[in-house]
Amino acid sequence: MSTSSIPALPRMMPGDYQAFDALFAQSSAIGATPAGGLNRLTASAEDGAMRDAFCHWLRQHGFRVHVDEIGNLFGLLTLRAGAPWLLCGSHLDSQPAGGRFDGAFGVTAAAVALASLARQLKERPDQARYNLAVVSWTNEEGARFQPSLIGSAVFTGSSTLDAALACRDAQGVTLGEALESIGYRGTSRPEMPLAAYLEIHVEQGPHLEQQRQQIGVVTETWAALKWQVLFRGEQNHTGPSLMASRRDALLAAAKTIVAVRDEADKHGLAMHTSVGRVETSPNSPNVVTSEATLYIEFRSADEALLKTTGEQFSRTLQQIAQQTATDVSLVSSLFRPRQKLDAALAQRALKLAEESGLSAMPMQTVAGHDAISLSYHCPSCLLFVPSHDGLSHNEREFTAQEDLHRGIDLLLALLADLCLSPDAASEVTRC
Amino acid sequence: MSTSSIPALPRMMPGDYQAFDALFAQSSAIGATPAGGLNRLTASAEDGAMRDAFCHWLRQHGFRVHVDEIGNLFGLLTLRAGAPWLLCGSHLDSQPAGGRFDGAFGVTAAAVALASLARQLKERPDQARYNLAVVSWTNEEGARFQPSLIGSAVFTGSSTLDAALACRDAQGVTLGEALESIGYRGTSRPEMPLAAYLEIHVEQGPHLEQQRQQIGVVTETWAALKWQVLFRGEQNHTGPSLMASRRDALLAAAKTIVAVRDEADKHGLAMHTSVGRVETSPNSPNVVTSEATLYIEFRSADEALLKTTGEQFSRTLQQIAQQTATDVSLVSSLFRPRQKLDAALAQRALKLAEESGLSAMPMQTVAGHDAISLSYHCPSCLLFVPSHDGLSHNEREFTAQEDLHRGIDLLLALLADLCLSPDAASEVTRC
Repeated sequence: MSTSSIPALPRMMPGDYQAFDALFAQSSAIGATPAGGLNRLTASAEDGAMRDAFCHWLRQHGFRVHVDEIGNLFGLLTLRAGAPWLLCGSHLDSQPAGGRFDGAFGVTAAAVALASLARQLKERPDQARYNLAVVSWTNEEGARFQPSLIGSAVFTGSSTLDAALACRDAQGVTLGEALESIGYRGTSRPEMPLAAYLEIHVEQGPHLEQQRQQIGVVTETWAALKWQVLFRGEQNHTGPSLMASRRDALLAAAKTIVAVRDEADKHGLAMHTSVGRVETSPNSPNVVTSEATLYIEFRSADEALLKTTGEQFSRTLQQIAQQTATDVSLVSSLFRPRQKLDAALAQRALKLAEESGLSAMPMQTVAGHDAISLSYHCPSCLLFVPSHDGLSHNEREFTAQEDLHRGIDLLLALLADLCLSPDAASEVTRC
Repeated sequence: MSTSSIPALPRMMPGDYQAFDALFAQSSAIGATPAGGLNRLTASAEDGAMRDAFCHWLRQHGFRVHVDEIGNLFGLLTLRAGAPWLLCGSHLDSQPAGGRFDGAFGVTAAAVALASLARQLKERPDQARYNLAVVSWTNEEGARFQPSLIGSAVFTGSSTLDAALACRDAQGVTLGEALESIGYRGTSRPEMPLAAYLEIHVEQGPHLEQQRQQIGVVTETWAALKWQVLFRGEQNHTGPSLMASRRDALLAAAKTIVAVRDEADKHGLAMHTSVGRVETSPNSPNVVTSEATLYIEFRSADEALLKTTGEQFSRTLQQIAQQTATDVSLVSSLFRPRQKLDAALAQRALKLAEESGLSAMPMQTVAGHDAISLSYHCPSCLLFVPSHDGLSHNEREFTAQEDLHRGIDLLLALLADLCLSPDAASEVTRC
């Protein structure tokens, strides 16, 4: 049956847009950088302040707040005791000198949309099929603590709680300690069988803007191969020590960074690669580097290509180690397979967009998102709004207010449709 | 006239070796690393503790302690009021995870040799032509604060005091603040016209060991060109942002590190090059690097070659910036010209070595030393003892005790010769 046949679905009201604008402005101010970005690393003082403000907002709007063992922050609205939950959210942490939309838009949009939906459902008691919850996942970014997506991985069980709490930042502080220091290390996960997970996010790429589309409905992800590689050489004086006797770990790292880029260039648009982080020791101008660690990423929609690349690049690393008289080791390797998001939910989102007069297109995501973690656990849907110039993880990241509002429109329409449609339950079968 | 005709020159006594061994062991213990090295960065707590211990030793042995405005630490022995000074020393700071011989040997050897000389000269009052002083120069290493050789540069006037005090470490602490925090920011420089400066140091290269020589007498330095280069790109997400649109400052830095090494390889043994330090921002695994700073060194005995290399490499940097869509700028550039040490002093040292039955050879130094700074100011002499495997700026840096003792033997012989020989004054004319 068509969703258009359902009368008087809840919609965003003028007051809701104002509530969203205010909450989003508050988020943009906590950890704000002078250049208009955000510096709100996981479990930092700024993250703590933002969580406090968000909890206050949730309680003011009738949510019950729950913090789980890895610091995931839930706002719960019980509409039908014992029923499954519609969970909707994203993350409040940022990259260092990151943008104010990445993650924060999804959490604030979800909170406002859910509050509006619950308020409008008061007029039709007993029609809600699900309970409603908003979530802010811990450490989506993977900036202060690696890997990324830690909170959602613990929630779905793909990472153990102990391993997640033991992750250390560059200063040696564990995630567990950092969460405790801001008062957000909870004690238990909420009892919440999920009907579906929904997330809205800025695209972080140029495609929607280039295609002049207002909404992207993500149907699948690229796969990713993430390596942490360590070269060990030997400290020596950069002056008198003979060039031939040097075992320079920074030179090995540099050759690797160039080779990683060459891999992408070999495969045109089919592969993205990067080295974003390098740690060297002793990092002194007059000392040959003894240790260098690189954080390498290969991403592609083609899993077979990634597999071949991984095998070939292992040999490249060995060759570089041989050339530089260093030793190389793979400290960690993480393969994130290509994953399809729930097709029925994506179809429903595209249809609702069309009915709402929004231009929308199905698309892939290259970046990881908590919705991908959740998609292994329950039917999940990921919506994108445009990113100006495709710029992200940058203080100049920007999405226009109209685009944000259009995104919330669709998010609320989808939540309402799922919560009220008689056919929703039959399509959401995997929970 | 021959120095061998001078009767009964003061010599190291058995008790002096014990005094040296004890003082050197104390130095090796303050800031010691588990692997047998030293971590005693300029104006750190460890540096403060070592300075305290050294001042205590100096006072116990009859020296008057003076700390100048940049923290250079002098131990003064007035033998003939109003006469010029023989100054002898090196530095007590180390690299991070550095060796325990580099610098510390020269300071402790000088202190023990001067104390012994002064004691033995008590038997021949009125024969000493000079006063005696030991010095430990501030921040020779250039590890915590750049550039290197700050203390001796201020002493000779080649750097201004204000510029030196304003140098900042990676945490933004100035050298002035750091010296104050350990109580070693003095108020005035000592009144001391210099007759000569002498320094003994470990070679930090393989030549003495390879040539089976016990002593190196440095006749000249290599020239050095030291650049601090900054690439600016743009932060972006390492996932979805298109490869073609990336402006990756770390990729530019990596290409530069490889190109710097290629320069050395082009010129065989005639050039040493390095990049020992790299600073990147935001240094997050999922973010394209927006800023990368490199500390580049080119060293050669051939100044013309360095000049050409500098000109050509400027073009290489521009090409790399163009290839990576980054901007490049030269933050600082320092040229240390080739410099000859005092030929008469070197000749005297070689002759005394021969008379003492020590095998010695003239040689060049690639590394910078405070003796080079001083050589622009007064006749200066730099002696080397062997470094095992040529290893330096490394916790495994090693020189055998016999080699250290042989070095002090020659140092004391040279100090005594200068202080007592009637012909010394005529040769030391430039002070």
